[in-house]
Parts: sequence; structure tokens; C-alpha cells
Amino acid sequence: MSPEAPPFTCPLPVQQYANVVLAHGAGGNLMHRLIDDVFVKVFANPDQEAEHDSAVLECDGVRFAFTTDSYVVHPLFFPGGDIGSLAVYGTVNDLAVSGARPLYLSAGFILEEGLPVETLHRVTQSMQAAAQRAGVTIVTGDTKVVERGKGDGLFINTAGIGMVPEGVSSLPAQVRPGDAVLLNGDVGRHGIAIMAAREGLAFETTIESDLAPLADLVAQLFDAGIEVHCLRDCTRGGLASALNEIAATAGAGITIDEKAIPVLEDVRGACELLGLDPLHVANEGRLVTFVAPGDADRALEVMRRHPLGADATVIGTVTERAAAPVLMKTFGGIRILDMLSGDQLPRIC
Amino acid sequence: MSPEAPPFTCPLPVQQYANVVLAHGAGGNLMHRLIDDVFVKVFANPDQEAEHDSAVLECDGVRFAFTTDSYVVHPLFFPGGDIGSLAVYGTVNDLAVSGARPLYLSAGFILEEGLPVETLHRVTQSMQAAAQRAGVTIVTGDTKVVERGKGDGLFINTAGIGMVPEGVSSLPAQVRPGDAVLLNGDVGRHGIAIMAAREGLAFETTIESDLAPLADLVAQLFDAGIEVHCLRDCTRGGLASALNEIAATAGAGITIDEKAIPVLEDVRGACELLGLDPLHVANEGRLVTFVAPGDADRALEVMRRHPLGADATVIGTVTERAAAPVLMKTFGGIRILDMLSGDQLPRIC
Repeated sequence: MSPEAPPFTCPLPVQQYANVVLAHGAGGNLMHRLIDDVFVKVFANPDQEAEHDSAVLECDGVRFAFTTDSYVVHPLFFPGGDIGSLAVYGTVNDLAVSGARPLYLSAGFILEEGLPVETLHRVTQSMQAAAQRAGVTIVTGDTKVVERGKGDGLFINTAGIGMVPEGVSSLPAQVRPGDAVLLNGDVGRHGIAIMAAREGLAFETTIESDLAPLADLVAQLFDAGIEVHCLRDCTRGGLASALNEIAATAGAGITIDEKAIPVLEDVRGACELLGLDPLHVANEGRLVTFVAPGDADRALEVMRRHPLGADATVIGTVTERAAAPVLMKTFGGIRILDMLSGDQLPRIC
Repeated sequence: MSPEAPPFTCPLPVQQYANVVLAHGAGGNLMHRLIDDVFVKVFANPDQEAEHDSAVLECDGVRFAFTTDSYVVHPLFFPGGDIGSLAVYGTVNDLAVSGARPLYLSAGFILEEGLPVETLHRVTQSMQAAAQRAGVTIVTGDTKVVERGKGDGLFINTAGIGMVPEGVSSLPAQVRPGDAVLLNGDVGRHGIAIMAAREGLAFETTIESDLAPLADLVAQLFDAGIEVHCLRDCTRGGLASALNEIAATAGAGITIDEKAIPVLEDVRGACELLGLDPLHVANEGRLVTFVAPGDADRALEVMRRHPLGADATVIGTVTERAAAPVLMKTFGGIRILDMLSGDQLPRIC
């Protein structure tokens, strides 16, 4: 097969849409176009050019990372987590993949009139437990209430601050041909767990979200002196979108090996049933790590010693820019692995 | 009159409510109870005890303030501003009243499916203009989309980081008997402007929100060497709630003089019509400043030289703890000025 699709273009420019559609929030092509057109161009500033999960800033000689995410996951509680633990770990992970040690979180709540106070109690308790596990402190917050029918129970925003140790950087621009690409475990569980909970789907076993705080795993890599070039968590849009984003920013190609990517049998079955590609399904405890060629084995070893990296694998390597940003070796040959297009699973985070 | 109401208690404990009601977001008693019961107790940590608009933290010898607010104002555009400029100035002001020089903002967007992309464009452009006016940079962001009917057009969360210069503090606990209480202008405009826009009310003139960034005004006070003890912006719950919060935290009394508080004629008229007390109506460009007794005149002078403090007045003084946290001298005598109770004006910020 000779891939011929023009690389780095979006088939669905945001300009074609007069109104916001669900796909604008799905983590794929359309979301990136919306962000580029409506946010990045308008909020243009030198700190933003890094295209990273957090902004890395410097103030009085201290380097810190700053990030934010709003959480609108539905349902609020799902196997393996809830909107509260998701709001903590999601933001902690965005800091971690920027090379930061997460320290402080803010929490903004938008409550819909009629939400049981008991639900809110459960969620804040879950947030506090998650914060303690991740070693961060929720230091400031805000509450707003909207009328019944103008929200959906509960939305949470968290912003996070972390310190970036001297010499640490994990920018996509550092990725170069020859780098090894590592993945810390199986993919597709979070999105499928949400979907199953939402639609009342029953599989042979309950699929649990992989939701987990990745900061300690990342710290282990840096502490071991691994030459880490880039980190990215594989959330909305899944592993495929994360790889495409990095390849585009780095101006490089990535070739991965399908059979090296762990996917649980149940997740694979659910994806077949739902017509989804597990590589496009969101994760909340998975990251791709790009390391210098000579450090791949040692990085794998460090990861596998950590509970959140026990199933880590080397899934591929970085190449020169190719016909498409990401190519995947499959049983039958090589295919282009595209970024998610459209709205596969709305409101998974 | 001898005020006999027991001070510092809440007539409507949150436990009486199984479900969230609009008043839980209104800035008054009920919101404070919800915050205490569901957030502060659960997220207990040493940095939170200051009861301030931002958390003031220290990292590697650098002191910084961190704060967040979600904005659900309805309608999105109103005389004097829009949700975008509000989301920037509101958070800038929370940093400013903590004594910080605002530097960086994050922006999280929750879009309802169907929102015109054009509306989003207008809002982000307004945010960028506001950020430039306030001297802050929007460095990181996030976008989520919810289905039609599960949101209300557009909600925005901003979190902010500012540096706190050495020696600067504006904690309520520093307030002491004898302090002068200053206000930088007329009150009640923001809430009435929103209400009029929402309900299509027409008054003789269009009442414009007082929305403005207060960081420069605050910096002028500190730069002039004024002994500032406390600062608080008078947002949800209005001037009355801000004063009650500070009196409660400081364990002091505050006596203010009604006739020293500027209220525009149109605002007064609108409040009478709507059955509101202008001292309970939200502002977005007003702050109360507590200064050492000897610095009152000089502080007033500094404020009046600034465009956002041209109508500044001394509205009262701090006393020992009295029968009620806040007393107000009126034409007829002295009355208790309570914190807002219930939901006066939902979704004004």
C-alpha cells in the first residue's frame, strides 16, 4: 500500500460550521480547528507556541506549568472513577506530561439546580481522596448554580500548577527521528467504560476506566536520568490523536506496530460491537513517552517497575517526515493512522 | 434601636436542602454554608484558612496567588461588558484584592451544541482585549461541548496566577478596630445592568455594568506605601456581603454610613422597582479597602487620582465586635446590614 492522503490537513474546516457541534469537543480534527481559529489565533502569545498540555512559564527564576480542563463527563459515576477523581487526575496528568511536579489545584463547580447535595458530597470526597493520592492540594474554588435545564447536574473545572525542575522539558519539538515510542499499558478502557455506563451496555466483565495519576510514573523516568524527549497523555481522541498531534508539531513521522499495543479482549469486543477503533478511544491513565534511542530499554524497565506501567511496551519509532504523520504496521501491511475525525464518543471527560 | 439578632449565624443551614437551589450560588448565607459544608471541610488544608479571594502560596521562595471562577452570566452580552470581559476582569480582581500583580490566566470553555461560532469569536476577542487592558496573558485553555439542552450557550472558567510582592498582604484577619473603610465608587450597577438586559427592562438611561480591572488601582495603593490591611471586591452578594464576610473573619464590627455610599439615581430607582437593596446587588468594578486610621486621607487621594477611583469615599470604620457584624447609620438611626439571604439575582456572573 502506498498512502497518498495529503498529510496535516483537516477535511472539516471549522468555517463550514456556523454553529458548534458535538465533534468540536471530541478531541479530533474539528476540535483542533476550532481551537486554532477561535482561541490560539485570538489569544496569540509566545508562551502558547509550544502546543503542549500545559503552558510552561517562568517567574522570578521559578519555572512552573499551568493548565486547565473542564469536565462534563456523563454519567457522573462510572466503573473506575467519577467526575471528581477524573477532574483531579486529568489535570494532574496534563501537568505531569509537561514535566512538572503537580502541586496545587483550583476547583470551579457549575451546579444545576436540583442536583442532590449528597451527590456533590460524594464527588468532593472523591476529589479529596484523589488529590491526596496524587500529592496535590486543592487550594481555591468557586461555585455557580444554573437553573434546572440549563446545565446537566454538575460540571467541574480544575486548573493546576506544578513546578518544572531545572533542565526538564517534554516539548513535542524535541522529538527526533530514531526516538523510541513507549506506551504504559492497554488502551481504550476509559471511553468504553463511560459508554457502557451511559448506555447500560453489559459485557462479560465490567470494563473499568484506566483513570490514574501519572505524575509519579513520569517523575520516576526523569529521576532515573532517562533522556525523555516528549510525553503526552492519550485522552480525547485516543492514542491515535496523541501521536498525530506530536508528529505534526515535531514535523516528523511516527511508525507504530499494531500488535505491540495492548488492548483488553473485552475492550476489543466492545469496540467491534460499537464500530469504534480502540486507538481512537479516550484513556485517562495512559501516556506515550518519546525517549532517545539508547534509552528505550532502560525506560521500559523503569516503567514496568511502576504499578501504572506494568504492561508498558515499545510501540514504535520516530522517522523522518513521511507520506502521513503516523503509519501503523498491521497484520496485512501498513496503513495510515489518522487523527479522530468527527464525534466518536461525546462527553467522556 | 438595639439590634438583637445573634451575630454570625445562618438562618438556612445547607442541611435543610437535599438538593441544590439557585440561592446556593447567589453569594449570600446559603452559598457560604454550602461552601463550608461541602468544600472547605472536605478540602481542608492550611492554605485555605485565610478565607480570601485567592490562595496565597509559596514555592521556591516566590509568593504567588492562585484563584478560579466560573462564569455563567445570562445574557452573554450586556451593557458595559460580556461574559468574556467578565471572565477576565473577575479573576484579575480576585487576584488584585489578594495583593497580587495578576500575570497569567487559563480559560476553560463549556459550549452548548448549537452555539453560533460567531458568538464564540466575539467572546474570545473581548477576552483578549480585556486581558491586554488588565496586563495579563491567557496562556492555556480547554474546550468541551455538551448536547443541546444540557448547557446554556457558553460557560467560561478562568483561573489566574499573580505574584505577591514581598511584604504585601491583604488578609481579612489584619483588619482591626479603628481602620477606615473606603469604597472606590457607586454600587449596584452590574447586577441591575444584567437584570435589565435579561428582562428587557428599560430605564430612563441605560445602566451600564461597572465591570473593570482593579489591579492597577490596587497597585497604586501599595506603591504609595499606604498601610492596607484588607481588600475585597464587592461581587455576588454586593457590598453588604463583602463587609459581613470580612467582619466575621476578622472577629470585628464594621459601622458604615449609608449616605457616604454612592448609588446612581437610576440604580436606586431600579432597585426600588425590583424590591432590591443596592447594597446587596453585585458589582464587578468595586472594592472595599481597609486601611490604617492615619492613612485614610492619603488612600482616598491615591484612589481619586485613578480613573476607577474618581468617586471614592470613606464609608465607615472598624469597631470592636458588636451586636452584629455590620451596622449602618441611616437617616432614621442604626440598622443591622445583613449578608444577602436567598437568591436575589441568579446568574449575574
